[in-house]
Amino acid sequence: MEKEQETTQVNSSRRILLRVAYDGTNYHGWQYQEGLPTIQGEVERALSELLKEEVHVVGGSRTDAGVHALSNVCVFDTSSRIPGEKFPYALHPLLPSEIRIVEGREVDAAFHPRHCDTKKTYEYRISLGEFENPLNRLYTHHTNYALDITLMQAAAKAMEGEHDFTSFCTVGAQVSDFVRCVYSVDVTMEEKDTILITVTGNGFLYNMVRIMAGTLIEAGKGRYQPEDIREMIAARDRAKAGPTAPAKGLRLAKYEFL
Amino acid sequence: MEKEQETTQVNSSRRILLRVAYDGTNYHGWQYQEGLPTIQGEVERALSELLKEEVHVVGGSRTDAGVHALSNVCVFDTSSRIPGEKFPYALHPLLPSEIRIVEGREVDAAFHPRHCDTKKTYEYRISLGEFENPLNRLYTHHTNYALDITLMQAAAKAMEGEHDFTSFCTVGAQVSDFVRCVYSVDVTMEEKDTILITVTGNGFLYNMVRIMAGTLIEAGKGRYQPEDIREMIAARDRAKAGPTAPAKGLRLAKYEFL
Repeated sequence: MEKEQETTQVNSSRRILLRVAYDGTNYHGWQYQEGLPTIQGEVERALSELLKEEVHVVGGSRTDAGVHALSNVCVFDTSSRIPGEKFPYALHPLLPSEIRIVEGREVDAAFHPRHCDTKKTYEYRISLGEFENPLNRLYTHHTNYALDITLMQAAAKAMEGEHDFTSFCTVGAQVSDFVRCVYSVDVTMEEKDTILITVTGNGFLYNMVRIMAGTLIEAGKGRYQPEDIREMIAARDRAKAGPTAPAKGLRLAKYEFL
Repeated sequence: MEKEQETTQVNSSRRILLRVAYDGTNYHGWQYQEGLPTIQGEVERALSELLKEEVHVVGGSRTDAGVHALSNVCVFDTSSRIPGEKFPYALHPLLPSEIRIVEGREVDAAFHPRHCDTKKTYEYRISLGEFENPLNRLYTHHTNYALDITLMQAAAKAMEGEHDFTSFCTVGAQVSDFVRCVYSVDVTMEEKDTILITVTGNGFLYNMVRIMAGTLIEAGKGRYQPEDIREMIAARDRAKAGPTAPAKGLRLAKYEFL
């Protein structure tokens, strides 16, 4: 009897995973905030409109104000019979063009995007040169400095590995464990005037990638050597790392479940 | 005496060339229109503010509403002593971030950007795939069609050369000569999901590149063969060519004086 009830429950409420891409320029980040435009708020509004029920979504990565994503994820439960794959098509007319659902699928009822092993890839773009290209201005941080990419690459390697990243976390973050595993930090040229920093890891602290990018920019000016990065990490002190680079250069590029 | 006066005149009024890059998304094109945001209007306002005199600029290419540029040009006359090279720095604080002056220099007092031999390069971008990438949406036209790039390349070659391009000009354009020389039309892949059309020529008619792009998109669907393009040109009839592709995919990439 109990078994049957359980089955009925599973049948009547399904969990749907959505993969979400967005231009964060005009949003106060992923997380819902009363009275402010947020990505979560827009997705929940569109889902509630579509399903004629109040829908709450659980997000994968709570990106900051102004940060972009090609692939964030969220899940929600619904009794609706709409197949998971149809959600992108059903939601697009209800969403602004800045937010696109690039995948929808049904997942196990117990699936939680933050309680599984994941590999996330963030990209940070820095354009060089005397004047900013207005067509890149919303998605790339511009600097006049002639950054030395070799110095940045050396500093980046010193960030890789499992470390306590307290020095790379904005003070006040409500977490108890500051250890994260950064699989790789790559610094490459994308086109002739854009530096691309690609960071992959199992998870990231609040502002962590932006502080890494800000620190790598300083390294590119000759301010930090790899040894300084190692000391910075060991210090577990936000004041020892470089500045937080602007949000607009950052995008969550991939969110993979392992 | 007359000679001396001429020299004095040349000394007191100098002609400055500006190279202008802009995100055309929120503008009603290059050309000044009373009460509407235009690129020319913004540049003239900033120059007038800077120089404390009413400045009129003569533009190189009068791009349409929503079209972008990395390198349009304009000239103006001024009695100011500001060196040409300093204008970008002096104007940027007075301009929105959507408009950047990427070059300034003094030119001959008789120099006119539309009365010299020029080579202009336009780029048109089309993104493919099921869903639009929100980070490309302002600068790239998106289509769900699986366009055949080989068909587009063949059709593009049939557009090259000196032709009467009446069929590729929006009806009502106030020109008497519809002959233009198109040096090259190249269709290539840029990244894995974006088709880039690059068109170079000595000049272009009203909406010409957008009609070429719209026609190439139809060619990519199998609607036109190279022979159809040749017939289209020979017909000198706008109704024979394909649709005008959306403005946002187009940018004026280069403006060279020969």
